[in-house]
Amino acid sequence: MRYKITIEYNGSSFSGWQKQQHSANSIQETIENAIFNFSGEKVTLHCGGRTDAGVHALGQVAHFDMEREFELYRIRNAINYHLKSTPIVVLNTEIVDDAFHSRFSAKKKYYEYRIINRYAPAALEAGYVWQVFNPLDVNTMREAAKHLLGKHDLSSFRSKDCQATNPIRTIDDIEIIQNGSYIYIKISAISFLHNQVRIIVGTLVEFGKNRTNPQEMLNILTQCKRNAAGVTAPPFGLYLVKIDY
Amino acid sequence: MRYKITIEYNGSSFSGWQKQQHSANSIQETIENAIFNFSGEKVTLHCGGRTDAGVHALGQVAHFDMEREFELYRIRNAINYHLKSTPIVVLNTEIVDDAFHSRFSAKKKYYEYRIINRYAPAALEAGYVWQVFNPLDVNTMREAAKHLLGKHDLSSFRSKDCQATNPIRTIDDIEIIQNGSYIYIKISAISFLHNQVRIIVGTLVEFGKNRTNPQEMLNILTQCKRNAAGVTAPPFGLYLVKIDY
Repeated sequence: MRYKITIEYNGSSFSGWQKQQHSANSIQETIENAIFNFSGEKVTLHCGGRTDAGVHALGQVAHFDMEREFELYRIRNAINYHLKSTPIVVLNTEIVDDAFHSRFSAKKKYYEYRIINRYAPAALEAGYVWQVFNPLDVNTMREAAKHLLGKHDLSSFRSKDCQATNPIRTIDDIEIIQNGSYIYIKISAISFLHNQVRIIVGTLVEFGKNRTNPQEMLNILTQCKRNAAGVTAPPFGLYLVKIDY
Repeated sequence: MRYKITIEYNGSSFSGWQKQQHSANSIQETIENAIFNFSGEKVTLHCGGRTDAGVHALGQVAHFDMEREFELYRIRNAINYHLKSTPIVVLNTEIVDDAFHSRFSAKKKYYEYRIINRYAPAALEAGYVWQVFNPLDVNTMREAAKHLLGKHDLSSFRSKDCQATNPIRTIDDIEIIQNGSYIYIKISAISFLHNQVRIIVGTLVEFGKNRTNPQEMLNILTQCKRNAAGVTAPPFGLYLVKIDY
């Protein structure tokens, strides 16, 4: 039986989603262990969007195959029971067709990046938002972001470690919302290159800081090299919000 | 010179705003110490809305008198420097008239109470929202809340330890916002009785859980005794949002 689970986690204390040879602190392994502890089965968990160390999720999706059958609410509660000392929570459990794959069946992924734009440090959200001291011009950021929409070679916006063979991606939407000192950058696409959201955010912040001509984004895009773009925004401001199937 | 400061804090680790004889862990004392550390003056800090242990603030307001004069941004930065190991931050500093008093000059105070209404525990907001497992009917809560608007004897909604001589208060507005699993209850008034917001929230949650006839709120109100109302919601879901002057 194939199960699909939706997961929320605070990524602060983890080495990222993916299980690594020499690290026991991945989200994947933590959940796999919780599943083993209640079912006695060693399963392999596949996720919809691999998150890096420190990145959070409000709606990560993963699937796994398990021999034994349990009622869905029991699976959720049992995994959560074994995760109770961790900041990982299973929100929902579904039975899916064997053809379902959390990564390959994904139709759209939604990320949100949270910035606090003020001089005073964050007391309540410290460690969960990126603090940018200089005042950001959100309209410049919005204009610059428009040039990224649609299908492009996004080589300027991927980590040097990105292992994707094809750097072409289609960005469906970039929405920038300002609410008091907070700025939320929401980006959706069917798939992303490694660090793509964080490099786009880092670049948009430079546009906002310096009120750079938004047309300059086209120049960054067409150079197709990582150092044309801005810094990689820190992981702790990034949230994988949901995945559509 | 009288200074007005606006403050954000995470109340989780504090005994509350007010300095106590036998506790060194009040927010008031922590900030007074920070002011002493940069100015060498022992000031007394008066706040707009005293918050209990565990209650947070996004926009607490306080005032103090200081002999020496400093530029406003230097006061903010110097206090924040001395608060940097604490989850307290001064957002803003102003010079005010000697007649200004953070409590007595207040025109309106805004509180927000945050609930997560789902069965799965909170991974990201754990300790910053009240988790209510049973599904809440928000419309019932909204209807019940309407009966509390305006001027009433709120004896049913005050702590047994409340020291106010007069239990009559005027509630200006109660707004209940639902966003996914989150429910935000926003209450504004010129002043509040002790635990008033938390008891109102605890009572509204019981209406939402049991779909109690909203008219029943009138009965609770007119009984004018604490045990007519519901539980006191936990402190960690409560935020003092702002104070108008």
